[in-house]
Amino acid sequence: MINIAIVGATGYTGGELIKILLRHPHVRIKHVTSESSPGKRVDDVHSWLKGRCDLRLEKLNIKNLARDTDAAFFALPHGAGGQNIASYVKQGKKAIDLSADFRLRDIKTYQQWYKTKHASPSLVKKAVYGLPEIFREKIVGNGRDRPLIAANPGCYATAVILALSPLLKNNLVDPDSLVVDAKSGVSGAGKKLDLMYHFSEAAENFQAYAVGAHRHMPEIEQTLCEVSGKTVRITFVPHLLPMNRGILVSAYARLNQKATVGQIKHCFERDYSGETFIRFLPEGQWPQTKNTVHTNYCDINLKVDERTNRVIVLAALDNLVKGAAGQAVQNMNLLFGLDETEGLL
Amino acid sequence: MINIAIVGATGYTGGELIKILLRHPHVRIKHVTSESSPGKRVDDVHSWLKGRCDLRLEKLNIKNLARDTDAAFFALPHGAGGQNIASYVKQGKKAIDLSADFRLRDIKTYQQWYKTKHASPSLVKKAVYGLPEIFREKIVGNGRDRPLIAANPGCYATAVILALSPLLKNNLVDPDSLVVDAKSGVSGAGKKLDLMYHFSEAAENFQAYAVGAHRHMPEIEQTLCEVSGKTVRITFVPHLLPMNRGILVSAYARLNQKATVGQIKHCFERDYSGETFIRFLPEGQWPQTKNTVHTNYCDINLKVDERTNRVIVLAALDNLVKGAAGQAVQNMNLLFGLDETEGLL
Amino acid sequence: MINIAIVGATGYTGGELIKILLRHPHVRIKHVTSESSPGKRVDDVHSWLKGRCDLRLEKLNIKNLARDTDAAFFALPHGAGGQNIASYVKQGKKAIDLSADFRLRDIKTYQQWYKTKHASPSLVKKAVYGLPEIFREKIVGNGRDRPLIAANPGCYATAVILALSPLLKNNLVDPDSLVVDAKSGVSGAGKKLDLMYHFSEAAENFQAYAVGAHRHMPEIEQTLCEVSGKTVRITFVPHLLPMNRGILVSAYARLNQKATVGQIKHCFERDYSGETFIRFLPEGQWPQTKNTVHTNYCDINLKVDERTNRVIVLAALDNLVKGAAGQAVQNMNLLFGLDETEGLL
Amino acid sequence: MINIAIVGATGYTGGELIKILLRHPHVRIKHVTSESSPGKRVDDVHSWLKGRCDLRLEKLNIKNLARDTDAAFFALPHGAGGQNIASYVKQGKKAIDLSADFRLRDIKTYQQWYKTKHASPSLVKKAVYGLPEIFREKIVGNGRDRPLIAANPGCYATAVILALSPLLKNNLVDPDSLVVDAKSGVSGAGKKLDLMYHFSEAAENFQAYAVGAHRHMPEIEQTLCEVSGKTVRITFVPHLLPMNRGILVSAYARLNQKATVGQIKHCFERDYSGETFIRFLPEGQWPQTKNTVHTNYCDINLKVDERTNRVIVLAALDNLVKGAAGQAVQNMNLLFGLDETEGLL
Repeated sequence: MINIAIVGATGYTGGELIKILLRHPHVRIKHVTSESSPGKRVDDVHSWLKGRCDLRLEKLNIKNLARDTDAAFFALPHGAGGQNIASYVKQGKKAIDLSADFRLRDIKTYQQWYKTKHASPSLVKKAVYGLPEIFREKIVGNGRDRPLIAANPGCYATAVILALSPLLKNNLVDPDSLVVDAKSGVSGAGKKLDLMYHFSEAAENFQAYAVGAHRHMPEIEQTLCEVSGKTVRITFVPHLLPMNRGILVSAYARLNQKATVGQIKHCFERDYSGETFIRFLPEGQWPQTKNTVHTNYCDINLKVDERTNRVIVLAALDNLVKGAAGQAVQNMNLLFGLDETEGLL
Repeated sequence: MINIAIVGATGYTGGELIKILLRHPHVRIKHVTSESSPGKRVDDVHSWLKGRCDLRLEKLNIKNLARDTDAAFFALPHGAGGQNIASYVKQGKKAIDLSADFRLRDIKTYQQWYKTKHASPSLVKKAVYGLPEIFREKIVGNGRDRPLIAANPGCYATAVILALSPLLKNNLVDPDSLVVDAKSGVSGAGKKLDLMYHFSEAAENFQAYAVGAHRHMPEIEQTLCEVSGKTVRITFVPHLLPMNRGILVSAYARLNQKATVGQIKHCFERDYSGETFIRFLPEGQWPQTKNTVHTNYCDINLKVDERTNRVIVLAALDNLVKGAAGQAVQNMNLLFGLDETEGLL
Repeated sequence: MINIAIVGATGYTGGELIKILLRHPHVRIKHVTSESSPGKRVDDVHSWLKGRCDLRLEKLNIKNLARDTDAAFFALPHGAGGQNIASYVKQGKKAIDLSADFRLRDIKTYQQWYKTKHASPSLVKKAVYGLPEIFREKIVGNGRDRPLIAANPGCYATAVILALSPLLKNNLVDPDSLVVDAKSGVSGAGKKLDLMYHFSEAAENFQAYAVGAHRHMPEIEQTLCEVSGKTVRITFVPHLLPMNRGILVSAYARLNQKATVGQIKHCFERDYSGETFIRFLPEGQWPQTKNTVHTNYCDINLKVDERTNRVIVLAALDNLVKGAAGQAVQNMNLLFGLDETEGLL
Repeated sequence: MINIAIVGATGYTGGELIKILLRHPHVRIKHVTSESSPGKRVDDVHSWLKGRCDLRLEKLNIKNLARDTDAAFFALPHGAGGQNIASYVKQGKKAIDLSADFRLRDIKTYQQWYKTKHASPSLVKKAVYGLPEIFREKIVGNGRDRPLIAANPGCYATAVILALSPLLKNNLVDPDSLVVDAKSGVSGAGKKLDLMYHFSEAAENFQAYAVGAHRHMPEIEQTLCEVSGKTVRITFVPHLLPMNRGILVSAYARLNQKATVGQIKHCFERDYSGETFIRFLPEGQWPQTKNTVHTNYCDINLKVDERTNRVIVLAALDNLVKGAAGQAVQNMNLLFGLDETEGLL
């Protein structure tokens, strides 16, 4: 049994973590924290949980966490968790961090994009970018070289990296030609109140935001550089969909040579062979966000546009599951040597 | 007073035409036709019109149309209108065709994309592509050289052409680098029943379709070639949004030199100077489909991604208005020498 | 030309007022006020208005309003307008108040439901409840007896009163048996940020609120008492719909005798004979909110449930138009002796 | 291990059954049938199932079903299953029928409401109305008196009966005063194509349908008569919500005496004491459909409107789960002596 805590349990990601972990056969939730609502019942904040959860929220107390748990999920805004995570992992515990704080290896890049001083820069090298389909071995670790922190990727980042990785790894495309048009449901913005996410503003509406300036770009480029061994610069434009959950990314890249669609598909199938959570779809079936919602799957398909010698890759996932909480549990499973799919099927 | 007919008046575009023309100070609707529902009251088919419209649908009778009207809007599926349009315009009448039948100058291209033999190939050269902001002079005509048919552009095509035209016309971008990611609300699919547009399939869902194979591509490329004088090939991927009305296109292009965003914006402002229906938005305000719905506006803005030397252009419009019925009325105004904005503000 | 002001112009109702009045042939908008955003352009707050409106918001200045305008629409929260309205109308101007402040004749009832001291109790008797289809003569006034203030009804209240009035006026139902189940789109809640109206909470969700305790109850009962001459108590439960605009009320009442559906329909048709904005639908056509959205219509139909001797009346309208801004303009037209439908068709 | 079949597996209910049963620890799905799509893979029809299900659809063959299975879920339209169900259960198997064919005890009532001759009238008395919270003992059966068929209730019916049963059973209300206003998401209509369920017709729209004439009425009244021992006639009006999943019923009843809300709540708590799937909510928390979606819960709360001496009961559930597939599995668990909640938490 793995005893865990969820730090910052009142948001949508926190709720999704509780939902998944309540069904996990090897996990017991010992602490759920909230600085804004200590003392409240979890099933009053997440009212859909009524009858399934008796936990009460508490203020974060690292000593108690260290005493009672083996791992903790930190679902706090960026910059809010750093010191606490440091204290926690120094006591030999594992942390799965859903913020961006430990995703970027270069501290300057982090501070430039997140406009905040990094709270624990020395801990960054003990973190691993928690995308199992790309970095499984690093997450599992090896003898002495075990990560203390799994830095859970951004929701968009997961979809983009999974969509583009085989193309770059197999040198199929020009790394300077990458365009990614991403779309997400509103739950990706969290529970914070903002006119942009007010129902009357977001419903029956569609728009781009953070155009070419989204914070997921550095972690996407860092990872794609790592898998390809090249400098990768993407043009990335996210958009807000008038729906709750789901992300679809449409990625475009110029092919290096006239690789056939068969060859390209073969690379995807080979690179993702055996990956439970990547569904490479049959010919003609395009990923639909609805097919991934409430699952930990990422659905992918591609097409070669022969007229322009481009490949178009489409990838769909649930921003709260494979884009956040589901992937976090997948990382926890790996950190603890469990079946990676435990609690996620 | 211009007497008009609407042929194929029961669909969403037909309904939108009726709505706009009922308010047009110089138009009288004399005939509304439907082969599937002759005899029915228009306000039974379009129940929102109750109290505002006493017309009854009839089977199409070109003789009556020619006798009673000066112009007719043909809102029929592609291939369904050709002969009738020919008979009608041969009697000196004007036709605004909302199908694709007269948009493409090359008959072979038409037949290849629409999988049907063209009903009136000789009439194609008497048609003009009805995008006023690009082809106003051709639509208005000149002495002998007056078009008989305004071929109303496809909804996506209007948005894409307006987004990209200044870039190509002013040689700002590489015509080989164009990627267009388009998204439309479901009304663009019309009233036909298909599982894909069933509420339970389309709501809370997002997906691509007709990937790299959408019928609007040839007319987009034809027009962009015309404005730029170059061969233009685009990668075009449409997507279905879980909402009723609205299109947003996100267009990506590689800049030829290091043109500043100021220079690029200047080209847009100059090319569209005085255009009532193009709103080039202030810095930082991204087009939202909601702001264009129920109007004939196309909202545009752009950004230069300096890291990748690309320009990103976003364009939003209402697929049923500027993408169809509104633009059709705009064309009618031009064909008859009226104020172009009549009935549309 | 009637010069008008809109006080509190940044909310959804304010935006709808601007939209309607920009098209009104006899109105000129001279002032638009906002205490929270003075100096801002109206088309920055209501970005859909870009290109159609050059007005700037200002802080409210009653002196300027009195100097420059003939009438003012007050779209402020309850309790916020009272003194200003008093100052304004004392200078011989007309006010159309969209708050609840002047709807209730009994001050104690007002203070009990709105939990605030009434700012101008003496002015209440100079106000008229602005539901034209019921109180036209009072709104128009008569010689000396002209109202200074049209108290625009609540959105739900309009629908409920129009649905039930003929039943009560003609003594067709037991006034003790009235049950009203009402449903509204989210725009009825306004722009204020609240978790309940956050897209992720309201989308794909449906719930009741203010159960049996909604503030529209006293004005509904006051009006129904007036039209029937009896004490009327209703059970009223509003619900929040996962959509932007539209209200449907489903009203249930026990029939007094075995009145036939024909007789009941005759009463509705007679009572609402000639009413432009009430559409009593044909047999079998049930009101749909969508058919009323962006119009000033209220669609009504009814059915007799013979098994239970009840009548079911359904009424749909657009909460922002017939439920607010449209009705306000209708009232303005009456106050100024214009054609009641001006600007509304 | 219970071997089961799903007859009519391509609809939304069929898909939901597969989803639940794939996770049921004691069930193996041996056959899934479809007359319209035999040979197709289940995960091509229900594409969200990809990677989780290798089954292929087949034409219904009762012999094979009887040979290979212990129980079968019949998810066919009313009138379509009767003979097959008869053949199946005559071989000692259990059937859970999701159609209406075995819900009504009076054949004449069935034929009057469903406009079809009953295929197996003699089998009706061997069926039990499958609402466990009301008829658990009958479903479990007793020695010789074991039902062959669990007639799964209609989705609306489940919510209405659970909402009203304690009121009637405890003689708290006048059985002549019942008004039920029901609202459902579009998935309740199934996959069949109809303009009413076309996204462009159903989105951003709300309307009533089958006013006072919905087929669930006879089974609601049959059941409420049974629990109360009185004749019960309800006025029932369903409405279509612009969302996928979820039902909320708002039920209104006149109280017999001045029972306090405490007393009424006590009856609900007592009658539903220990019921896993009924969540009687705390004071002030109104049922939201979203909290029940993808669960087998029915959330209930109530309020007494003292001014009118009425009680208002609100009940929410997921039309595809507690309203159909979840309840069907609950019934299967009971028929086979398993823990009732197996596979449903």
